[in-house]
Amino acid sequence: MILRTSHSSPFGRKVKLLAIHCGLMGRIHVEPANTRNPDDSFHTQNPLGKIPVLVLDSGVCIFDSHVICEYLDSLNQGTKLFPQGPERWGALTLAALSDGLMEASLLQVYEKRYRPENKQFEGWIKMQANKVSNGLEVLENNIPQIEQSPHIGHLGLACALGYLDFRFNGNWRKKYTNLEEWLKQFSNLVPAYSATLPTD
Amino acid sequence: MILRTSHSSPFGRKVKLLAIHCGLMGRIHVEPANTRNPDDSFHTQNPLGKIPVLVLDSGVCIFDSHVICEYLDSLNQGTKLFPQGPERWGALTLAALSDGLMEASLLQVYEKRYRPENKQFEGWIKMQANKVSNGLEVLENNIPQIEQSPHIGHLGLACALGYLDFRFNGNWRKKYTNLEEWLKQFSNLVPAYSATLPTD
Repeated sequence: MILRTSHSSPFGRKVKLLAIHCGLMGRIHVEPANTRNPDDSFHTQNPLGKIPVLVLDSGVCIFDSHVICEYLDSLNQGTKLFPQGPERWGALTLAALSDGLMEASLLQVYEKRYRPENKQFEGWIKMQANKVSNGLEVLENNIPQIEQSPHIGHLGLACALGYLDFRFNGNWRKKYTNLEEWLKQFSNLVPAYSATLPTD
Repeated sequence: MILRTSHSSPFGRKVKLLAIHCGLMGRIHVEPANTRNPDDSFHTQNPLGKIPVLVLDSGVCIFDSHVICEYLDSLNQGTKLFPQGPERWGALTLAALSDGLMEASLLQVYEKRYRPENKQFEGWIKMQANKVSNGLEVLENNIPQIEQSPHIGHLGLACALGYLDFRFNGNWRKKYTNLEEWLKQFSNLVPAYSATLPTD
């Protein structure tokens, strides 16, 4: 399988984190995608022009990161990260919340990346930043405990916080100390977290 | 169960479409969410401030639309819309592509809704419009045939096309005639489509 992603994508990191954690990374060849190059082939692998994309040996392309993670988890011989019982819905909702935190963070980054300075709008940045802080506030007061082993929601949250470290100087750590402690515990439990730190 | 959504949300429409199609609508009370009101309670039900949100009788909140659809499908006594076999990945990738089409469409609408005119940027609108046209181009040449019964990917695609009708004057119909024919067939097969047309 070929995974098209970048070194900085939080969604790509989530996939790599799951793949390493499940012992599947040996079956995956990571082929860097250059999101700023309109001619990069990942645009034909996902017409939305979004990474990550997983290209199966058959040539079939699977996306988005949530679907890739669930697909890889179906190949996982160990403890599943997508629970099948009633705990599935809490795990998937936390995963969706985490994806939303990443999206709102990315939209703030995109504001500067894809617009000339005079078209950047503080109100939009603030609206996205509020989504992030509202989400962190709820999580800070309802820390998603890891019962025996982490699930997809925990992986997503770790990647969302890691992206805030990467692009927003880790300012969240000042206010959300329960979450900071949670991330420390998570990274001790899942060594792949430290092995997938984002870079430019 | 309470479904928080608006009359215009394509993601909310997808949930309603699935609920009606599966005969679950009788168990759901739809409570309109006003996305322009910062004090609307859906902001506490989903800290990302996004709809739809499904509030279970226990008070637990489930989101995003993909997770809600999968949850409702778990209650569905009829043919499942989330396939369990190898066809799952194609269905989920089509669902993700359709969600991406809706997101790129919404970002174009948001450009005008959430920014003063002098902060709107044609380059960003074009970037999102290109995601939509690239996606439609791929689908036009690879029509996602409905084998016996529709799956979640088909429902998503129908809602994405319906949103283009609603907010972009159905201009897609001029160029993508295979997709237009597909939507006609879909709406004949799934009467809930006509029963959930978006309104402001």
